[in-house]
Amino acid sequence: MKKINFNAGPSILPQEVIKQTAEAVLDFQGEGLSILEISHRAKYFQPVVDEAVALMKEVFHIPEGYSVIFLGGGASLQFCMVPFNCMEKKSAYLNTGVWAKKALKEAKAFGEAVEVASSADANYTFIPTDYTVPQDAEYFHITTNNTIYGTEISDAKLADIYLKRGNVPLVADMSSDVLSRPIDIKQYGIIYGGAQKNLAPAGVTFVIVRDDMLGHVTRHIPTMLDYRTHIDGGSMFNTPPVLPLYSAMLTLRWLKANGGVEAAEKRNIAKAQLLYDCIDHSKIFVGTAKAEDRSRMNVCFVLRPEYQDLQDDFFKFATAKGMVGIKGHRSVGGFRASLYNAMTIEGVQALVDCIKEYENKI
Amino acid sequence: MKKINFNAGPSILPQEVIKQTAEAVLDFQGEGLSILEISHRAKYFQPVVDEAVALMKEVFHIPEGYSVIFLGGGASLQFCMVPFNCMEKKSAYLNTGVWAKKALKEAKAFGEAVEVASSADANYTFIPTDYTVPQDAEYFHITTNNTIYGTEISDAKLADIYLKRGNVPLVADMSSDVLSRPIDIKQYGIIYGGAQKNLAPAGVTFVIVRDDMLGHVTRHIPTMLDYRTHIDGGSMFNTPPVLPLYSAMLTLRWLKANGGVEAAEKRNIAKAQLLYDCIDHSKIFVGTAKAEDRSRMNVCFVLRPEYQDLQDDFFKFATAKGMVGIKGHRSVGGFRASLYNAMTIEGVQALVDCIKEYENKI
Repeated sequence: MKKINFNAGPSILPQEVIKQTAEAVLDFQGEGLSILEISHRAKYFQPVVDEAVALMKEVFHIPEGYSVIFLGGGASLQFCMVPFNCMEKKSAYLNTGVWAKKALKEAKAFGEAVEVASSADANYTFIPTDYTVPQDAEYFHITTNNTIYGTEISDAKLADIYLKRGNVPLVADMSSDVLSRPIDIKQYGIIYGGAQKNLAPAGVTFVIVRDDMLGHVTRHIPTMLDYRTHIDGGSMFNTPPVLPLYSAMLTLRWLKANGGVEAAEKRNIAKAQLLYDCIDHSKIFVGTAKAEDRSRMNVCFVLRPEYQDLQDDFFKFATAKGMVGIKGHRSVGGFRASLYNAMTIEGVQALVDCIKEYENKI
Repeated sequence: MKKINFNAGPSILPQEVIKQTAEAVLDFQGEGLSILEISHRAKYFQPVVDEAVALMKEVFHIPEGYSVIFLGGGASLQFCMVPFNCMEKKSAYLNTGVWAKKALKEAKAFGEAVEVASSADANYTFIPTDYTVPQDAEYFHITTNNTIYGTEISDAKLADIYLKRGNVPLVADMSSDVLSRPIDIKQYGIIYGGAQKNLAPAGVTFVIVRDDMLGHVTRHIPTMLDYRTHIDGGSMFNTPPVLPLYSAMLTLRWLKANGGVEAAEKRNIAKAQLLYDCIDHSKIFVGTAKAEDRSRMNVCFVLRPEYQDLQDDFFKFATAKGMVGIKGHRSVGGFRASLYNAMTIEGVQALVDCIKEYENKI
């Protein structure tokens, strides 16, 4: 049976990226070697890195003055790399979920890291707006999409943040909605994320960093934690995660061929609307996130109180229909369907049909 | 034409590991999903991590009291993680090459990092023995194999190091000879390495750490740099490099099925001897490393002075015969053939035949 992959991450990738990656594992570009065993210094791998960087800049409309690097270690490593590189004394954080809170926790070891607002008391079901950004902070950190809770900072709220930040550069963890919509990059000093949602298989992290964010802290930065090391080394200071980086490049090619982030945004709006409409008209399900802060990437929904005992039954029903990865995170419960760039509208329709069929059955 | 892969790293992997990894990219264990898109929290991935850890312990004979973890970031990140976790005031380093020197450089930011000896003046062609290990050092760091220079700490010199270290725990970068021979693990506090030589494709790092090495430093350790984070999280504190980790597990299965490190050592001795014998009897080539310190993993050889002008010609000749990755590192020049675990004796014989044919031709 055909599976439909709603995993929150690592997650669905375009079928052609999977196929091309499998081909490269058997024979990389007709070189007679697997991508698993080629040297990253081989003359045929440098173009892969160059193309990944160039496509990231092109598709995401990254202006002059920014570097794009690919690293290992995941977004979690960035939680300390950002303050290592950019926080001399003070930073500000918007706490919109567990990952935002983890980022804040790391920064606290480097000086005064201010939590400007938090929706923790409401189990992170909304994006706070009632706060100011201290203008002596060296950066203001946001998490644009909160995978666990199904919230995302909407374009309207991003515009508000651009005003609120004043002269403080933004740093954004975009792990789970990068490349899903156009972003006004020049508002940001740093954008980073684990690539295992919209961009690549697990094992590679992207960082977009504006040159003027670096060189201002007086502390010693260990070589591997210094962004300048990787900028100067063109992401090849040490051995990069070769295969995940190759798949990232293939995904960027796919995204460009399919209309870039502008077309992706249209598809993502249509997909999210289809599923949220279904949930909003459901007699047994209800969405968990505040409507205006709903994520297009992760749709979280739970059974209404009177239908709670159907949890396992619906899960089995949907699983039997080929739906994969729809269990909600334990801190929210219920269900979560992740609709990343590679998810098709047909895939979402199948889930909607599954929900409707189940409702008619019970 | 069949290529023979002598790359220094990322490097040759067993053919069956490549084949099984390609299959998993198309469909992971019949789950109907690619390994590129499965969740690391899926019920069918935890057994992969568990098996990789268990096989590493079994095959490498790791005793009780040690943890095995798999991380991202490469061995270069370990250069700072080791002092972050284990160096309060003082450490000692044996400088046997560029990578050892880089490790030493990172440690210097944490306190007094003593270079006990160095063969830098001889372009790292030998492993120094004329030194003592300061007994107030918190660890003594060695690099067991030096990929660039083709030197390796022999069993005899390791035995000498075990005496010299006294009560100081050893920390070893075994990136390029891990699992190539039996090692007396209990001599070591930490063994680490990038896995992209004998163990896996690029993107995953292994760390073997003895429990009593941790918890002694007073500094704050960022969460992702703290070994305890990854030990407690079972290498799954954050998203691991899923595919490289899966291939590592497959390689460990292959190694076990082929007699473990004991049988690998026998094969590695035979392969290295075959090639060194050829070079020692060559009229045009000469080995670069001191005989007693020759690496079984990386065989470095250069043209004799009177044949220097054949550099490009031999390279073309060997390339036409299917030899890949035999160019020496720029700091040594000449040629380097890497004979990691997955290299077959037939592959080495093909290179020997190629050298002999070339010599007869000129």
